[in-house]
Amino acid sequence: MAAASDEAAVVRNKKVVLRRYVTGIPTEEDMEVVVDTVELRVPAGSTAVLVKNLYLSCDPWMRDRMSKHDEGDIVLAPDFVIGEAMVNFGVGKVIDSTHPGFKAGDLVWGMSGWEEYTLAQPEFLFKINHTELPLSHYTGVLGMTGLTAYSGFMEVGRPKGGDFVFVSAASGAVGQVVGQLAKIAGSYVVGSAGSDKKVDLLKTKFGYDDAFNYKSETDLAAALKRRLPEGIDIYFDSVGGETLDAVLLQMRQGGRIVVCGMISQYNLQEAYGLRNLYYIVARAVRVEGHNVNGHFHMYSRFEEEMAGYIKEGKVTVVEDVVEGIESAPAALLGLFSGKNVGKQLVALASD
Amino acid sequence: MAAASDEAAVVRNKKVVLRRYVTGIPTEEDMEVVVDTVELRVPAGSTAVLVKNLYLSCDPWMRDRMSKHDEGDIVLAPDFVIGEAMVNFGVGKVIDSTHPGFKAGDLVWGMSGWEEYTLAQPEFLFKINHTELPLSHYTGVLGMTGLTAYSGFMEVGRPKGGDFVFVSAASGAVGQVVGQLAKIAGSYVVGSAGSDKKVDLLKTKFGYDDAFNYKSETDLAAALKRRLPEGIDIYFDSVGGETLDAVLLQMRQGGRIVVCGMISQYNLQEAYGLRNLYYIVARAVRVEGHNVNGHFHMYSRFEEEMAGYIKEGKVTVVEDVVEGIESAPAALLGLFSGKNVGKQLVALASD
Repeated sequence: MAAASDEAAVVRNKKVVLRRYVTGIPTEEDMEVVVDTVELRVPAGSTAVLVKNLYLSCDPWMRDRMSKHDEGDIVLAPDFVIGEAMVNFGVGKVIDSTHPGFKAGDLVWGMSGWEEYTLAQPEFLFKINHTELPLSHYTGVLGMTGLTAYSGFMEVGRPKGGDFVFVSAASGAVGQVVGQLAKIAGSYVVGSAGSDKKVDLLKTKFGYDDAFNYKSETDLAAALKRRLPEGIDIYFDSVGGETLDAVLLQMRQGGRIVVCGMISQYNLQEAYGLRNLYYIVARAVRVEGHNVNGHFHMYSRFEEEMAGYIKEGKVTVVEDVVEGIESAPAALLGLFSGKNVGKQLVALASD
Repeated sequence: MAAASDEAAVVRNKKVVLRRYVTGIPTEEDMEVVVDTVELRVPAGSTAVLVKNLYLSCDPWMRDRMSKHDEGDIVLAPDFVIGEAMVNFGVGKVIDSTHPGFKAGDLVWGMSGWEEYTLAQPEFLFKINHTELPLSHYTGVLGMTGLTAYSGFMEVGRPKGGDFVFVSAASGAVGQVVGQLAKIAGSYVVGSAGSDKKVDLLKTKFGYDDAFNYKSETDLAAALKRRLPEGIDIYFDSVGGETLDAVLLQMRQGGRIVVCGMISQYNLQEAYGLRNLYYIVARAVRVEGHNVNGHFHMYSRFEEEMAGYIKEGKVTVVEDVVEGIESAPAALLGLFSGKNVGKQLVALASD
């Protein structure tokens, strides 16, 4: 039966594809779930790894890839290709591999497609070492967003102990981790979020010293000053816009602003005009753009440290999980209206 | 004649005083030259040092001290006091001192008043070690603006060798020094200035590789791209506003923006709204506020190094000198219309 052993099974492969490039606020109609098939074997000559996706991650940075950019535009990653599966971090199980680093059955996380099965590039895959922890954590706290929080707060924010820290989008995938790392580093931590429910989560679940609903505040600068009367040493910025402008007025001498994202700006045709950047001069404030690229070399160390914190109960995780690939587009869009509570992800399969 | 030796001479002391706090663009009428007198002796019990001012420095940062600030506003230094001499860096000769660090006849630079004689605070005075160089250089290249350029470019900009450097207000007191330090550090340096005459100076006198008149450019981003097609590693910013927004589009991976001043913004009622700060995320750009406070500890090392560069002809200095304290208000205002060519200073006396 030699011939039969050369034939791999062909199975259904549902995908979320981008139907058209987006301007302004994306809608579900900009995406489409299509049904394709896949052969459960790495094609001859390919060094890719065939992964069955178990969890897909929804992250704000995907928005930028849904736009059509001009050549030379500053982007984190290339535009998605119309009609092809969208791309983001995910958790999966290796089905077939000819690459020496991966074998069938390995649990992995890394860059994957928004589909049931993906031919993933091995250089963007990591093996999962802590299989005793929930696998879903590797879409977030133990994956890209956790590493973003860790490298941003520790290496860019550089806590000195006793810092006054402010975190926006504080209950989100990155913010919830930053706040808890800040507490571990001996900081006083204040967070902002967009609902009372999230604010409650910050105080009761993530150990924030104080928190507020920015939608209930008419004067953000005053809200910050009330809660951080001595000013801010480290601001971890995921929202940009008016919040950043208000924070600039409250920064202390030698303060650091880690600019990790500006979710308030992604769907705007014209960005908010920041008026207070000049104040960084008088107080010698550092404002540094941060993304996870360039920090993957520290992943192993990070994974060990973060897994330890989770097991010791020093870092608590809240995930917002929807089931099935059909739910993925709405889950992604929910990030931009603040619908998610905690790390947003999509569960596709348990094994 | 013991009684006579207790009596010190009393001489005229002309001063430039602020008449009223300023909103918007300052005018000569906001300042006034008044004639006072001074006893040529340090008052009993004072540890101040009586200095005869030889040169006064005109610097953009003085503008902020001419405004009335509210308590809690972010400022580099307190508001000037109405009716009292304005304050800035200057060069002078010690007339009388009871402080062990200074004696009559010493040449010094430091924080002084806009007047002929000042009771200066010794903690803000430095002795001049290189009296073989023009004394006026201690208002600029060997004084505060030189140290600002040096500490900003070397410690905040951190050149790596072979950097692409852009400097705005490039022929000004700080810019002219930054450009030449950048050349010494092996950079490719482009500068912008507000007149063809200044642009010529940049290329012929200060060793800039390329330069342009920003007033002749309709599209700053395009002007930068043409001259720095590979992008910018270090931007030394003294102007802010539209120039900074254009530069943000051209920054390279890991680039550094040293924000030293924003002269385009000082007289505006409402600051320019920066729209491109988000681009620091994708390219992990650092934007750091810089002022000379906190860098005076390195003054001795700086003075030796810079004096060496000047003697070797590696750093050339252009100064714009007006004579007499009556000329000081107009010279200061000229900074904001770009009237000065090079470091603006006021000569009061030769000895």
